[in-house]
Amino acid sequence: MGTLPGRLYLVPAPLDHGCAVQVPLSDSLPAGTLAVAARLDHWVCENAKSLRSLLKRVDALHPLGQPLQTQHIQELPREVHKKGDHHGQFDARPLLAPLTAGHDMGLASEAGMPAVADPGSSVVKAAHELGAEVIPLPGPVSVLLALAASGLNGQNFAFVGYLPQDPAERTRRLRELESLALKTGQTQLFIETPYRNAAIWASLLQTLQHNTRLSVASGLTLPGALCRTLTAKAWKPLPCPVDNSTPAVFGIGR
Amino acid sequence: MGTLPGRLYLVPAPLDHGCAVQVPLSDSLPAGTLAVAARLDHWVCENAKSLRSLLKRVDALHPLGQPLQTQHIQELPREVHKKGDHHGQFDARPLLAPLTAGHDMGLASEAGMPAVADPGSSVVKAAHELGAEVIPLPGPVSVLLALAASGLNGQNFAFVGYLPQDPAERTRRLRELESLALKTGQTQLFIETPYRNAAIWASLLQTLQHNTRLSVASGLTLPGALCRTLTAKAWKPLPCPVDNSTPAVFGIGR
Repeated sequence: MGTLPGRLYLVPAPLDHGCAVQVPLSDSLPAGTLAVAARLDHWVCENAKSLRSLLKRVDALHPLGQPLQTQHIQELPREVHKKGDHHGQFDARPLLAPLTAGHDMGLASEAGMPAVADPGSSVVKAAHELGAEVIPLPGPVSVLLALAASGLNGQNFAFVGYLPQDPAERTRRLRELESLALKTGQTQLFIETPYRNAAIWASLLQTLQHNTRLSVASGLTLPGALCRTLTAKAWKPLPCPVDNSTPAVFGIGR
Repeated sequence: MGTLPGRLYLVPAPLDHGCAVQVPLSDSLPAGTLAVAARLDHWVCENAKSLRSLLKRVDALHPLGQPLQTQHIQELPREVHKKGDHHGQFDARPLLAPLTAGHDMGLASEAGMPAVADPGSSVVKAAHELGAEVIPLPGPVSVLLALAASGLNGQNFAFVGYLPQDPAERTRRLRELESLALKTGQTQLFIETPYRNAAIWASLLQTLQHNTRLSVASGLTLPGALCRTLTAKAWKPLPCPVDNSTPAVFGIGR
């Protein structure tokens, strides 16, 4: 229970953002999540256009409580979602003013769960600072689906975001992550902007030890999803499994 | 695409296992996930009784393709789910023989996503070794809901499982996790068996620095859910927020 009249709901989005094919919303989001999304009319989001497009899809299954045109939608500032929302420097409390006025609010990113491998944590932090109740709704989380489907250790794992762009630094970082995974058994997960997929893949195969297990997942919950785990040695003779257009989650484990 | 005719589906379960109150399945599981669960009739699970009880609830929404009595249900050996399924020593390939015969199979744990903070990774590993396609289905994952709702850094985080039981070792481990969180900004998440909640809470408040942020979540997706993040200093004068009967997820961040 919070001390403010309004509650902050974390509303997950399907993982087909920016994809040619859309999947049925009901494949990714529980009816309960859809019902809450349809009822909310005050939002903070990564991108207003993407949120409106999501709400149109929700409306087709659960009619929205308020027409889209009258919804109160605020975007996170561009620098928060471009530079990462984890430095704790952005004060999101003003965005949450509607909570004080008794409105429930939704927080949404473009794909998956807000504040997990995605911006939004500054908004949740602000909600706690204000004493508001925070309610996360179930839905797809690409990093977690990738972890579960990898067969790598899911009882001790880390998600470390993006790797360095400089090739030498990237190799150094990969060595560090591999060493951690082999020594402690902690699975190391990371993502990359799609157009660097081929470069990161080459780095991985050059850097990892033969017996290190390497997983790659992309397009989970979508048609043609990829999810495969092999040793670095077994991957070597195979073509790069991801093209430069699809976001992928990579994992390293022993 | 796999090279075996059968596919392995990872089927999430709601988070109300063992709770007095059950929530509607449609609040936690997408219709698409329910439809696949209803269609499958070959299973590997943490606990057969819990799986049957879940399938009865699925049947009420999506009639099962095969009566419960004729479903082919195999349990993971007790030592795999008691001692943790992340040592890579258990060969689960024999459990997956139905894949070779062309049956799709489901993998389920008692609550949440199999193979994430729960046993099952040996089975997924075996599926990859056999060349089977692995398909993770969306649903609730307590650790991830807790992370999203904490407002702690969700762009760099680790889940480290259970803490040591010995008080001195536990304190040492907490110091290590706090130091990592403060130095690198990587949120550190862990769980505890419920009857140790009060002990771990006392350790946390004794060990953590004043300004370290500490989150606690329990009962997410259920009535009366708890999810709160404060500095260690702000927690000190408050009563322990979790009792000794509810599983909780703890998080440390800067």
